[in-house]
Amino acid sequence: MTQTRVAVIGLGSMGYGVAANCLKAGLETWGADVNAARVDRFAGEGGRPVTGPGDYAEADVVVTVVVNAAQTEAVLFGEQGAVAQMKPGAVVVSCATVAPDFARAMAARCAEAGVLYLDAPISGGQVKAASGELSVMASGAPEAFAGARPVLDAMAAGVFELGDEAGPGSAMKAINQLLVGVHLAAMGEAMTFGMTQGVTPEQFVEVIPECAGTSWVLENRAPHVVSGDYTPLSAVDIWLKDLGIVSDIARSAKFSAPLTAAALQQWVAASGMGMGGEDDAAIAKLYATHAGLSLPGDKT
Amino acid sequence: MTQTRVAVIGLGSMGYGVAANCLKAGLETWGADVNAARVDRFAGEGGRPVTGPGDYAEADVVVTVVVNAAQTEAVLFGEQGAVAQMKPGAVVVSCATVAPDFARAMAARCAEAGVLYLDAPISGGQVKAASGELSVMASGAPEAFAGARPVLDAMAAGVFELGDEAGPGSAMKAINQLLVGVHLAAMGEAMTFGMTQGVTPEQFVEVIPECAGTSWVLENRAPHVVSGDYTPLSAVDIWLKDLGIVSDIARSAKFSAPLTAAALQQWVAASGMGMGGEDDAAIAKLYATHAGLSLPGDKT
Repeated sequence: MTQTRVAVIGLGSMGYGVAANCLKAGLETWGADVNAARVDRFAGEGGRPVTGPGDYAEADVVVTVVVNAAQTEAVLFGEQGAVAQMKPGAVVVSCATVAPDFARAMAARCAEAGVLYLDAPISGGQVKAASGELSVMASGAPEAFAGARPVLDAMAAGVFELGDEAGPGSAMKAINQLLVGVHLAAMGEAMTFGMTQGVTPEQFVEVIPECAGTSWVLENRAPHVVSGDYTPLSAVDIWLKDLGIVSDIARSAKFSAPLTAAALQQWVAASGMGMGGEDDAAIAKLYATHAGLSLPGDKT
Repeated sequence: MTQTRVAVIGLGSMGYGVAANCLKAGLETWGADVNAARVDRFAGEGGRPVTGPGDYAEADVVVTVVVNAAQTEAVLFGEQGAVAQMKPGAVVVSCATVAPDFARAMAARCAEAGVLYLDAPISGGQVKAASGELSVMASGAPEAFAGARPVLDAMAAGVFELGDEAGPGSAMKAINQLLVGVHLAAMGEAMTFGMTQGVTPEQFVEVIPECAGTSWVLENRAPHVVSGDYTPLSAVDIWLKDLGIVSDIARSAKFSAPLTAAALQQWVAASGMGMGGEDDAAIAKLYATHAGLSLPGDKT
């Protein structure tokens, strides 16, 4: 059996880690990005730059790690799109957070071209992407899983296999994003509420992780508020985008999602205040502003 | 040093466990409740029934484990109230979830009577109450902590010491309840949102606890939705009450809490539909009703 050859489209904070871990696993790996500096950096580590769409003809697996549905469609089916070049039986691994209906549509269009499609959103942030320990919420045909396996092994600590067609992978990711986006806002709400009652962020971080009110994001993000360091692990604008996707899916399904709606408005306001590129723990600053409070390290 | 003698007022799902663990620790323990059957049960285990307010004169520590501020005030300062009978230097340990301002007022009134007051809300639910492994979020004078220590040791796995006056204990509890009440509603929202996208509650419970979207309450309550068993560990009406308290405190402090507000309305609706006495995981049934879905074990 010959070595799997892989092309990664999108070398941002998540995609770069995916591509680097494919290289590390010994796979021949191409990298593509609109930002030439990222491609140069990848080439410096031994990766191959995608020089034109023809390169995709050589790939057994094309992984798309782009921001949203529009970019996914563009890199797969746009003017320089990969699918038209891909070999029959090659596999697209689509990692962006998208609506399940969009994933089903992409899978159908790939099938028309003789290409397999794995609906494979990822979770874990850039730290886990860099260490090759992402979680993948995947669904698709058994042949798509089989073809993508060497790449999944390189990029992920765990792969949830959620069914034999596109859709459930993206649905599970949307569920996860709903929870994270709401839990982050709840963390900001609770921390700053506590400050109005004389509980400091330091006390919050000491006590709440030991109590029933804890969550994964609280334990991982609340310390950023204490240190006043908003270097983005994942950014405010991710939640503007992802709770927007969740809201759209929910409304289409006539599903009432009041916490998602309330949280989304907090992300909109945080982004509107200019915090879109900051770490998502910066949601606490929105709440603090509303309450006339100052947070640690706050220079405003 | 003589053995600490303790009276527990309120032998409900939490208070019974507190009283039983005081007995188990070898403390002479009185129990009081408006429900005579609970007092009889406690007497059957070796506890002493409170036969009149005069009994409180013998107690070194009086623990109040009642539902709210009004009941706390009544059992401490009402017609048959404990404080008027208590010895100088005896300690009130107040466990109900109340506003920090109320805790400060109770401490001041106790001080006038020469009685110490420990602001000591509890967390952990009836399972931890029964096993003597509650978390206590406590603040008060060092003498109050010292006097209450044998009782705290009997009832709790951990005591957070949050300051030397009443207020911060109740504030931390309110923060925790904000988070739990929001996280529970988020769990219901996410599980049933997933069902509209073809993700079953079983898949949700298998995958999400391994992902960034997890929370303590999700891991502990979502399985109840899968099994369709809503025997209350903590009930829907607890969150109607506690998010109401949080909302009141927040509004007084001019603190905008939109997730708390959205979650509170879900608890109001769940209680309005008749689920007030069910396990709090029943919040998922409200969401399912809104989406025209049936949950496992749902007979409606």
